[in-house]
Amino acid sequence: MSDRYTPTPQDRFSFGIWTVGWAAQDVFGGPSRAPMAADRAVRKLAELGAYGVNFHDNDVFPFEADDSERKRLIDAFRTALDETGLVVTTATTNLFGHPVFKDGAFTANDRDVRRFALRKVMANIDLAAELGARTYVCWGGREGAESGAAKDVRAALDRYKEAFDLLGQYVLDQGYDLRFAIEPKPNEPRGDILLPTVGHALAFINELEHPELVGLNPEVGHEEMAGLNYAHGIAQALWHGKLFHIDLNGQHGPRFDQDLRFGAGNVGGAFWVVDAVESGGYEGPIHFDYKPPRTEDDEGVWESARACMRNYLILREKARAFRADPEVAEALAAARVPELSTPTVAEGETWRELREVEVDVTGLAERGMAFERLDQLALEHLYGVR
Amino acid sequence: MSDRYTPTPQDRFSFGIWTVGWAAQDVFGGPSRAPMAADRAVRKLAELGAYGVNFHDNDVFPFEADDSERKRLIDAFRTALDETGLVVTTATTNLFGHPVFKDGAFTANDRDVRRFALRKVMANIDLAAELGARTYVCWGGREGAESGAAKDVRAALDRYKEAFDLLGQYVLDQGYDLRFAIEPKPNEPRGDILLPTVGHALAFINELEHPELVGLNPEVGHEEMAGLNYAHGIAQALWHGKLFHIDLNGQHGPRFDQDLRFGAGNVGGAFWVVDAVESGGYEGPIHFDYKPPRTEDDEGVWESARACMRNYLILREKARAFRADPEVAEALAAARVPELSTPTVAEGETWRELREVEVDVTGLAERGMAFERLDQLALEHLYGVR
Amino acid sequence: MSDRYTPTPQDRFSFGIWTVGWAAQDVFGGPSRAPMAADRAVRKLAELGAYGVNFHDNDVFPFEADDSERKRLIDAFRTALDETGLVVTTATTNLFGHPVFKDGAFTANDRDVRRFALRKVMANIDLAAELGARTYVCWGGREGAESGAAKDVRAALDRYKEAFDLLGQYVLDQGYDLRFAIEPKPNEPRGDILLPTVGHALAFINELEHPELVGLNPEVGHEEMAGLNYAHGIAQALWHGKLFHIDLNGQHGPRFDQDLRFGAGNVGGAFWVVDAVESGGYEGPIHFDYKPPRTEDDEGVWESARACMRNYLILREKARAFRADPEVAEALAAARVPELSTPTVAEGETWRELREVEVDVTGLAERGMAFERLDQLALEHLYGVR
Amino acid sequence: MSDRYTPTPQDRFSFGIWTVGWAAQDVFGGPSRAPMAADRAVRKLAELGAYGVNFHDNDVFPFEADDSERKRLIDAFRTALDETGLVVTTATTNLFGHPVFKDGAFTANDRDVRRFALRKVMANIDLAAELGARTYVCWGGREGAESGAAKDVRAALDRYKEAFDLLGQYVLDQGYDLRFAIEPKPNEPRGDILLPTVGHALAFINELEHPELVGLNPEVGHEEMAGLNYAHGIAQALWHGKLFHIDLNGQHGPRFDQDLRFGAGNVGGAFWVVDAVESGGYEGPIHFDYKPPRTEDDEGVWESARACMRNYLILREKARAFRADPEVAEALAAARVPELSTPTVAEGETWRELREVEVDVTGLAERGMAFERLDQLALEHLYGVR
Repeated sequence: MSDRYTPTPQDRFSFGIWTVGWAAQDVFGGPSRAPMAADRAVRKLAELGAYGVNFHDNDVFPFEADDSERKRLIDAFRTALDETGLVVTTATTNLFGHPVFKDGAFTANDRDVRRFALRKVMANIDLAAELGARTYVCWGGREGAESGAAKDVRAALDRYKEAFDLLGQYVLDQGYDLRFAIEPKPNEPRGDILLPTVGHALAFINELEHPELVGLNPEVGHEEMAGLNYAHGIAQALWHGKLFHIDLNGQHGPRFDQDLRFGAGNVGGAFWVVDAVESGGYEGPIHFDYKPPRTEDDEGVWESARACMRNYLILREKARAFRADPEVAEALAAARVPELSTPTVAEGETWRELREVEVDVTGLAERGMAFERLDQLALEHLYGVR
Repeated sequence: MSDRYTPTPQDRFSFGIWTVGWAAQDVFGGPSRAPMAADRAVRKLAELGAYGVNFHDNDVFPFEADDSERKRLIDAFRTALDETGLVVTTATTNLFGHPVFKDGAFTANDRDVRRFALRKVMANIDLAAELGARTYVCWGGREGAESGAAKDVRAALDRYKEAFDLLGQYVLDQGYDLRFAIEPKPNEPRGDILLPTVGHALAFINELEHPELVGLNPEVGHEEMAGLNYAHGIAQALWHGKLFHIDLNGQHGPRFDQDLRFGAGNVGGAFWVVDAVESGGYEGPIHFDYKPPRTEDDEGVWESARACMRNYLILREKARAFRADPEVAEALAAARVPELSTPTVAEGETWRELREVEVDVTGLAERGMAFERLDQLALEHLYGVR
Repeated sequence: MSDRYTPTPQDRFSFGIWTVGWAAQDVFGGPSRAPMAADRAVRKLAELGAYGVNFHDNDVFPFEADDSERKRLIDAFRTALDETGLVVTTATTNLFGHPVFKDGAFTANDRDVRRFALRKVMANIDLAAELGARTYVCWGGREGAESGAAKDVRAALDRYKEAFDLLGQYVLDQGYDLRFAIEPKPNEPRGDILLPTVGHALAFINELEHPELVGLNPEVGHEEMAGLNYAHGIAQALWHGKLFHIDLNGQHGPRFDQDLRFGAGNVGGAFWVVDAVESGGYEGPIHFDYKPPRTEDDEGVWESARACMRNYLILREKARAFRADPEVAEALAAARVPELSTPTVAEGETWRELREVEVDVTGLAERGMAFERLDQLALEHLYGVR
Repeated sequence: MSDRYTPTPQDRFSFGIWTVGWAAQDVFGGPSRAPMAADRAVRKLAELGAYGVNFHDNDVFPFEADDSERKRLIDAFRTALDETGLVVTTATTNLFGHPVFKDGAFTANDRDVRRFALRKVMANIDLAAELGARTYVCWGGREGAESGAAKDVRAALDRYKEAFDLLGQYVLDQGYDLRFAIEPKPNEPRGDILLPTVGHALAFINELEHPELVGLNPEVGHEEMAGLNYAHGIAQALWHGKLFHIDLNGQHGPRFDQDLRFGAGNVGGAFWVVDAVESGGYEGPIHFDYKPPRTEDDEGVWESARACMRNYLILREKARAFRADPEVAEALAAARVPELSTPTVAEGETWRELREVEVDVTGLAERGMAFERLDQLALEHLYGVR
């Protein structure tokens, strides 16, 4: 069925190779699907209308691959990219799968692990640049601890900074047109992960030698695992000029990382996410980082991938209709939302004028904000009944 | 009973006037205790061995107070301070109790509310400075929203910045020796609050005109409501040089804001909090921001206040013993915790040396981290069985 | 605007008097709205198309009311009911507002409090019966504890049972046509509340002398505060024949009790709630227990009340369309959902036949469940794009 | 180091074979430890002072094992049991690891999966009985759903009941001295799991044909993932006479299932758990169901196992000291905790006497509960400073 919710490359949808390729192994059970070669993922995603892909080094070739196996698998991947026209928008490094990274990578207590991690990242940055990626994602999934003394957090942040400083220099020296995007997560697989939220990562970036090279890749589920509002999170990242990439998926609040398809989980939240992405000046690809549930076979995998894009297009249409609706404009005005864009201090005023300002406290206190009407309009747009 | 856990002013314990003074009204019921005058709180806290206090303007005088009532109540407060020697370490503004602030203060959609909020803050900054406070806390409890369109987050952050820029200028122009400390909170009483965690606030400060004037006042329970590790949070704040103040209390994870006495709630977490405070270079007062449960009468209020300080002293002793224990030093070494302080990149190395570094991946992967032994030692120190 | 989502009494919508009447006082601030007399709430709800109301004794008259004030206020309430035709579907007792109940009511440590609570309930049961209520709700909001030794849980359950046994006898002896409905909640305002979920209350009922008189009144937000699936919860309650009443509202997962209007919060969950209510054989009123946000004035109160009903009607239409959609029927069959209604053990079989049963394990393991396609169909019904 | 916290078989500690045997594979990475044969686990646990073990069928032999491999491995297991004297206290079935169970076992939509699951359970019940187990644990980890239409909850509960009815009959017909213990869990690996809490499972049992054969096996972490108080949960299970077994471990509130060693995680909660176990009449083994973190090697595995038992013994000593402390007795009395054991209704009273009972409402409202003092005493016992 092709309709106005059928994606095209112009919609700039991208997927991680590891998403559709996930064999569905978890803590409690083995895989329910066969492994998928990266080139197959590319070809299928192209058929579905995707624009690009994102890969970990070990999505394309195994950790243990020798040079010839590595070359053979990269060539197959590249051929699939060439033949389909899919773009490599983003790349990243698997610094969490192999047990050498069991205590982290850039912040592992073992110095040799940290050194090895940097080498592994640089090697894949070369490949990323060669394949045309413009963003290099860094998810520090194992950078953390289960217990209080196991990690000296301030020393860990020193090492984390050291890693980004070195990698920034690497990219500059190599002349790559590549920026880094940190992906925060509060916990799982570690008990507590460093840089647990959008905020912590934004703050960290300010301490780097090349802060301009580093931004954020916030994931819906990761923020919602901390009970945080993802749309607020990316709005703050945009405010700082740091929303380099996004990872869309679904989650049901604080619990294990569900990685549901985009649209599932927090249905209302997804509407506001699309609204924030579309109206906030985000310029990267619309990227999905989800896991087709372990119950699904290959056909279910592609159903869920198709649905991620479809849901985005549906919500994009709704978000645009919401913003274009004259009754919404009126409700926004009634809620004084546009008034928040008026500076508090008038041109030419200083604290001196504000120091003794008189306002009608009683009138302001009694005046309702009319937020319920506004939110109901949004909900009715989401329901499709307006 | 006076023993080595009985506090003295040298321990630098402080309390909010509103903590012991809380009349215990909640969403579901009226107060269970009589209101308490600020001067009574001061005298009782002094008896218990506290060093200082922190106050909201409306802890001392009501929102509606006229000048003479305001003066009378401030005088009574000052007299109690003078007579007891208690220090005003910190002050803050009540920008959440009166319905005029129902949509926030610095980021209220209503511009007049924002202007009034700034005036209210400046007025209390004058009093704070006069009473000798060195830190001015800003908890933006009502800065947020329940629904997606109600708050334009980027505009709100513009206004938030505007407020801190103006207040920074005010303090500079007045020559006050006062710094601001933002207190993050993820939600409650608003559905989602702006600057929800330590990280978000740290990032925000970097955008201010006078970032050096603004730091953090993280509260245990507020971070734990988001499932975050408070000790990690203050470690990151210290790493940024921004831990200006702390709010200690207790909480049982993601749920309503419990404000339990310090020590209750996350018992193990409290040990690591004290360890982080004592070993991390924090220099402010040891401040408690808790609520004596609604079940308690006046006697219970003072029991709980006494217990906050007592628990800190007990945990301080334990944390010191833990850090001084030779077996712990050995376990830390076995877990390679000190190795994390060794830079990953050696003096004189660049990415070039790291690019092709060889390490013993198999050996590193197989080597255990010995974190369980280390954590068990900590737990036994906490239990007092070592 | 009157349309097919405009409620009529045939839709059997009811509201607590305390919902629209909430003056919006919370832990951090005073009321933002004026108190509302019960009779005004009745008249306004009738105008909006409601069918019935639910009241606490102290929604109609204050705790401290003397007999004449009580009578006057009940008469005004009754007059409003008579004039509008609104039905009293349900009543309940305020056992949480007054400080006498600070440690609970039926399970307060103080025996006199427990005795007083029983008296208060019986008095309001008389009024409930007189006004025609058929369900008597019991929310034990203060039955719980903040700390481990404060409540002997097994003794508390003995006392809880004693209370329901006595009240059951009271209703039987008085000949009232009234059943009790326990409303579980995990926490807030107490640290931990007894009978925290639908399950705990269902189990408890089995121990009563008159279990047939007691069922459940599950609230959306209360189950979701524990991260539980409300639709699953009411399905289990229906399975036990115990879904006597429902409290619909909205919540954003584990955090403070938000009491959002129905439809807000967990948007996707609300669809499945309506589906479960409509298809599960629930026969009671469609009751809303929410709080108009503190930001709203009187007009906003009625907007939010109207929206609760409207959202139910919208979702009812969608849920029916979903269940009537032939493609959904096909997708349910593909997911073998109807097969779950076929007994595992065939007529005439015993464990003996099953003991050595042979099945195609590999084929079953490889066969996908096709749940993603099914859930996407549901989501598209919710979006209104099918 | 042997001291009073060194366990002996008289302490009745038991472990799941799968706990120490976990190879530490998770969603994000492969195993960090070698697989461990069941007989090795038995021998090592015996050395550490354990009393018993619990096993899944596939802890001893692989899912795919043929009869001879199965026999060989069971024999090795049995030999280790015989040689060490370790008792098989409990057994259970792996109904979650193989992809055939991806949609559950007793409640899988596929009828053949349900039939196969029953066969698999019966086969292992035979082995359990043969090895002397008295409790058969049933954790329905995959009985659930990620999405709303995928599972007909009421049909699923019918099938769940059918399974327990058949298995109960099996045990009776075979003359086995074996009872079932349901282990609830709210989510993970499924989005929502059926019978998510202690309460839901207790309620379910009441609907079975042989309810006397079925009780509970609550796990600390599983209840705490829902933010529930585990000590309260087992107290309610004891009240119903249904605490057949316990699974002790550690967790940090709502997040992924951490399975920390007992004592870690919620340190304060663990004290109250031991108090509830020791004072509540629980008679089963003290069982640990945890996972040594993925950071640990073989030595770390045994450190963590040793620590589980050690922590229990430490806390048992503290809980006994707390209950024996005269100051605690006095504080309990001051908090009127014993008064809760006095029936609310006096001998000979009926509702008639209560209907008009007079109590001193003001006096009761003003009287504090003195819970803070009591809880502080408990905390100081936990700290070991009394």
